[in-house]
Amino acid sequence: MSTAGAPPSAGRPPNETRFKKGGRDGTLIVVSRDLKHAAAAAHIAPTLQAALEDWATVEPELKSLYRLLNEGLLSGAFALDVTALAAPLPRAYQFLDGSAYLNHVELVRKARGAELPPSYYDDPLMYQAVSDGFLGPTDDILAATTDWGIDFEAELTVVLDDVPMGIKREAAGRHIKLFMLVNDVSLRGVIPAELAKGFGFVVGKPRSALSPVAVTADEFGDAWDGEKLHLPLVVTLNGRKFGSPNVGVDCNFSFARLIEHAAQSRPLATGTIIGSGTVSNKDASVGFCCLAEQRTIETIETGKPKTPFMSFGDTVRIEMLDRAGHSIFGAIEQKVVKYAGPGA
Amino acid sequence: MSTAGAPPSAGRPPNETRFKKGGRDGTLIVVSRDLKHAAAAAHIAPTLQAALEDWATVEPELKSLYRLLNEGLLSGAFALDVTALAAPLPRAYQFLDGSAYLNHVELVRKARGAELPPSYYDDPLMYQAVSDGFLGPTDDILAATTDWGIDFEAELTVVLDDVPMGIKREAAGRHIKLFMLVNDVSLRGVIPAELAKGFGFVVGKPRSALSPVAVTADEFGDAWDGEKLHLPLVVTLNGRKFGSPNVGVDCNFSFARLIEHAAQSRPLATGTIIGSGTVSNKDASVGFCCLAEQRTIETIETGKPKTPFMSFGDTVRIEMLDRAGHSIFGAIEQKVVKYAGPGA
Repeated sequence: MSTAGAPPSAGRPPNETRFKKGGRDGTLIVVSRDLKHAAAAAHIAPTLQAALEDWATVEPELKSLYRLLNEGLLSGAFALDVTALAAPLPRAYQFLDGSAYLNHVELVRKARGAELPPSYYDDPLMYQAVSDGFLGPTDDILAATTDWGIDFEAELTVVLDDVPMGIKREAAGRHIKLFMLVNDVSLRGVIPAELAKGFGFVVGKPRSALSPVAVTADEFGDAWDGEKLHLPLVVTLNGRKFGSPNVGVDCNFSFARLIEHAAQSRPLATGTIIGSGTVSNKDASVGFCCLAEQRTIETIETGKPKTPFMSFGDTVRIEMLDRAGHSIFGAIEQKVVKYAGPGA
Repeated sequence: MSTAGAPPSAGRPPNETRFKKGGRDGTLIVVSRDLKHAAAAAHIAPTLQAALEDWATVEPELKSLYRLLNEGLLSGAFALDVTALAAPLPRAYQFLDGSAYLNHVELVRKARGAELPPSYYDDPLMYQAVSDGFLGPTDDILAATTDWGIDFEAELTVVLDDVPMGIKREAAGRHIKLFMLVNDVSLRGVIPAELAKGFGFVVGKPRSALSPVAVTADEFGDAWDGEKLHLPLVVTLNGRKFGSPNVGVDCNFSFARLIEHAAQSRPLATGTIIGSGTVSNKDASVGFCCLAEQRTIETIETGKPKTPFMSFGDTVRIEMLDRAGHSIFGAIEQKVVKYAGPGA
């Protein structure tokens, strides 16, 4: 099932009386498998966050609507411009970004001349990321200066319902309700000094963009084995393919393991997003999900990086295709634009 | 003005039709200055988060209700048990905790044998903290084991409306809408290894508790100078006074400066909470707002800490009194309780 948070301007607005003004949380719609049509779902739950808070009741109703939509049996369905959608969760109460692909961590640290401690292979690396606002899939990446070293990071994420404190890996997987893609925008010029302060990211990781739609696991067919998703994540930079690492390859930690880690000392609230970290395969011939890895490979090979970070006007596209070549989540496609300042 | 998010069980439930089931965001009430009475405010805004999202419209209505309540002119007012209240924001989209009191940072690092880099005096230390759930002011602190090294941290916080990216300090202060106290629960036995991983806190800082009510700046009278609040924060441990450092003393960064820091690369959404960090005065005779500082002083003086971290059954109370001795926010008062596990 594919759901999305439509901005007030997208498609035919469903039952206006049911959603609050302002649109800070979007409006729930159900999107057809081919991403070409949608149906209002605000009569079931006004927003995706509200749906997640009552998922056991809401999911069967949304699935029923989804089936009718895919079969062309809904008179109220409307044509959808998937590029006009807001993030499925335009804001969330929590985004915990893991580093499930230690190959990424190894490479990025290698570029800084740092080693990976052995404990990293047992104890997941994770940080509390920005969740008070997510960019829509085609929103610009605003930056004051390219000195920030603007990079993308293509990741898979899951969205959870309520997770009790102290949950074990074996029980954690059942709290995964939805999947989304994320572009975890990273400011490589800012991060080293910020991390050196010892408290993680505040300035170096600004708002991330989410894919147009969020989907349930059944959309992956047998590509999802219950723990890992065996499909490539395709990254295109300025129209040229940059990488397509497989999400199921060289993944050191399952989402269930990441949830277990996050919930050690506290429960996780419904709508919590867990990120995989930058997808990264050891086979460099498949390319990369961020510029930093490409630059690290160049540094290792030639002594210095050749590929620049993103400039104003550069565009990154992140998408996942199923085995039939169909876009599962719709594409994140973002341009880097100079920020004119708070007064503009 | 004092506002709070009442749990469904507190006081007379105001206009039930106006709030959504589940109570994940509490129900807005206005609380009298003496914290003894309250009035339903859900007809103005269902929750504090909703009020903040429309503050310019909502604030005059709430202030009018507050005035009538304080003057005893509201027939619908009810007696309030302030200890039964939920957190004013039972969940929030963002909690950025600063370290405005470098004396705290200096002391805690000194105990770890670490020095404070000079840049810390210009560039605020801040981390992205847990906001998907806040404990109510009298909720237990649940811990699986005291090996976690359970500590409290008493802080002042502010709640913001929408802050544009790139805002400067001079313009930032006007986005401060409300103040709350927080007990930033810290697991000293977990933190060193977690921080050593370089990505900040996930497990070492579990859910924090907020004061019963949130107040506007006018409640402080001239104790608030527009930048800093000149009142002591009183911490009591198991019924004995532990410390009362003054929030306005040895504060290296104003909230406006912390907001400027946080918003460098992104906007901050309405309802963002900014924490001051543990309040700490250089004059150790006023006592402390966390156990770690007391232990550091003992280590410096005698070679090892004498004061233990919190044990099961220990209670910490955090409160701020105005110059007339009246409790401004109501008290945070929490007991440490052993967590029985996710199956219990």
